[in-house]
Amino acid sequence: MKDAPEYQLTPREEIQSRIARFQQALRDDDIGGALVSQNVDLFYFAGTIQRSFLFVPAEGEPILAVQGNLDRATEESSLSRVIPVRNSRQLAQTLSDFDYSVGGRIGLEMDVLPARYYLALQRGFPQADFVDISEPVRKIRMAKSPYELSQIRKACGILSQVMLEAQRSIRPGMTEVEVDSMLVALARRLGHQGLLRMRGYNQEMFSAHVFCGKTATTSPTMSVPLGGLGTTPAFAQGASFNIITENEPMIIDFGVGINGYVTDMTRTFVIGKLPQKLQEAYSVAKEIKDFVEQWVRPGKSWSQLYEEASEIARRRGYQDHFMGYKGHQVAFVGHGIGLEIDEYPVIAPGFREEFEENMVLAVEPKLVFPDVGAVGVEDDYLVTKTGMERLTTYDDHVLTIDWCGSSG
Amino acid sequence: MKDAPEYQLTPREEIQSRIARFQQALRDDDIGGALVSQNVDLFYFAGTIQRSFLFVPAEGEPILAVQGNLDRATEESSLSRVIPVRNSRQLAQTLSDFDYSVGGRIGLEMDVLPARYYLALQRGFPQADFVDISEPVRKIRMAKSPYELSQIRKACGILSQVMLEAQRSIRPGMTEVEVDSMLVALARRLGHQGLLRMRGYNQEMFSAHVFCGKTATTSPTMSVPLGGLGTTPAFAQGASFNIITENEPMIIDFGVGINGYVTDMTRTFVIGKLPQKLQEAYSVAKEIKDFVEQWVRPGKSWSQLYEEASEIARRRGYQDHFMGYKGHQVAFVGHGIGLEIDEYPVIAPGFREEFEENMVLAVEPKLVFPDVGAVGVEDDYLVTKTGMERLTTYDDHVLTIDWCGSSG
Repeated sequence: MKDAPEYQLTPREEIQSRIARFQQALRDDDIGGALVSQNVDLFYFAGTIQRSFLFVPAEGEPILAVQGNLDRATEESSLSRVIPVRNSRQLAQTLSDFDYSVGGRIGLEMDVLPARYYLALQRGFPQADFVDISEPVRKIRMAKSPYELSQIRKACGILSQVMLEAQRSIRPGMTEVEVDSMLVALARRLGHQGLLRMRGYNQEMFSAHVFCGKTATTSPTMSVPLGGLGTTPAFAQGASFNIITENEPMIIDFGVGINGYVTDMTRTFVIGKLPQKLQEAYSVAKEIKDFVEQWVRPGKSWSQLYEEASEIARRRGYQDHFMGYKGHQVAFVGHGIGLEIDEYPVIAPGFREEFEENMVLAVEPKLVFPDVGAVGVEDDYLVTKTGMERLTTYDDHVLTIDWCGSSG
Repeated sequence: MKDAPEYQLTPREEIQSRIARFQQALRDDDIGGALVSQNVDLFYFAGTIQRSFLFVPAEGEPILAVQGNLDRATEESSLSRVIPVRNSRQLAQTLSDFDYSVGGRIGLEMDVLPARYYLALQRGFPQADFVDISEPVRKIRMAKSPYELSQIRKACGILSQVMLEAQRSIRPGMTEVEVDSMLVALARRLGHQGLLRMRGYNQEMFSAHVFCGKTATTSPTMSVPLGGLGTTPAFAQGASFNIITENEPMIIDFGVGINGYVTDMTRTFVIGKLPQKLQEAYSVAKEIKDFVEQWVRPGKSWSQLYEEASEIARRRGYQDHFMGYKGHQVAFVGHGIGLEIDEYPVIAPGFREEFEENMVLAVEPKLVFPDVGAVGVEDDYLVTKTGMERLTTYDDHVLTIDWCGSSG
């Protein structure tokens, strides 16, 4: 396929710089080392997801102890110590053989590591005092390198083509699921990795969320403003068998991943014409997004951004519709993206942290009207020295689908 | 869309019978109650995946304590006690208010519940002695009801259409990813739920595995015989940018899910003609599958089936190619399917359990040749009183793709 992305290994310098920042964080928290095992964190720090424990000592060479395919792990990882290991008991012995301490404070990804593995590690490392390392890991992953940004930009390019295809090809009478299948197939042909990752227990995420009218108002099990009805309560999110009709607001919220890195973009479409009330609501969502674009710069606080954005919604009279309708609202207006779709920063109350250069975030003001539908917009941004650079570039007005049979 | 499956709630009698069997298992193991929270197990026992803890006491009414969308949980679940709850501390209080004991042996799904939640529950239930409930839960889910079978049969119907489309539409020069995108889109349009679930930590599964020639020999991070190269080491499985060529073995291993229930089927395709050596290998894979079809019946042992199947491979001289090539072999030849793609029974060494009526399993003998490719076949079966009924019905010979430019 022309212009297909290549099977690309993470450059050695990337891995080295990530490990160095991780080791600094370990020393800052007085942690002797960390055992990393979740797919995303393994990929970030070792360049491979072959079943392994990655031991990162506060000082010295990391050890990738592989339980799975050693050949593939060795090929994919630029780490110098890639060795086979059988189980957590042998793991402790191996680390001791390398003169690393297997006692004291050792970090684990306790937000994702299942209890059974945690208890097995307690037996394998009886001298260890395990601490949760997930917060520092997620904070290290916040700021993106030029290499990471180049992956995100590729994904943004595919997203633009997806939105263009939506605008060209959606017709009344199609089901939401048909639109989903068409757009996901296009993204995949262009190189989309196929799945999106969301951190944590029970988090599942579809590449496409397509809702027309009322289905946009059904909230899902995850904390997101719009999740859709889906085709079954077994998943309870995404496109449904609902039929696309004219003059109704249609939401397409789409994620594309390239080499692990995801982007996330929402557009509101209509075949025909939106009711005036929804057109006005959309202009408020757009106003909030435009405000955010201007407001964010290094040093500003995450939670204050949420307050400012909510204040615009309130001032315009949409407080009962902002990020869900009354009784079903979620308290955020944006989130970081990277290897997972729910990274830091989180634009929500209680997060006093500040924006820093090279963070990448999705800003997604959405307004929901019970029994009617939703309107909104979502773009991805890079925080620069002086403000933000928009990474998703598709036209951010309500997108009218031209169709010869359209009454609009 | 015509014939589209409906958004279907789990019938009340299903839920009641599942809860009754679970309560019996709790009493058998002397466990006072279980706290279920994983999406799949929640869906099985409560009919909803809205963020909740389901408390199932050994005797009495279960309580679905919902942290997420209470309206949707109430609508989707047929349980009578669906109540809101804020956190694990309030949860213990709520259970006490219902006169349930919050001490003693309480079951948790420790194979999937993250350590952080486990530790929070320990704080919330200081009198509890938590035990791992995942084995009994998985064993209860093994035997399928007529309702569950009807979902699986629907998914099998879609799988046949997917394989027919593959046979009609694949052309030399397409990439594996293009074939993936085309077939997944068809399945989705026909009602495929979009994602497949595999139990446990770090387990991710693509709907389509499409490999042509050598990419079939790259093993993935999961314990499966074939996993493919994928498009990136961030996922390391599935279709790649490799180009489909004539006279090479092409594997399509595909999963479809309807209302949570998945099916799993593999066919070997060729554009043109397979080399004689691979054609012979395929006939051995087929021989093994035919043997299994005849051999299985209630009372036979899972591990003995694995031994018998391996013995055929050995007798025919394929011991270094069976379920992976030498050094990269996995020790199983089949697995249960249901709400997850890796259910019980497991056809592997060490599993002394016996087949029982109404189990559903995928049987997948595959032979792998380094630097060449793989051949194999996979079908799904229902264990009946007297043997097995095949659920996937598509032609199980090597499927030749007719193409006017073909040299075959």
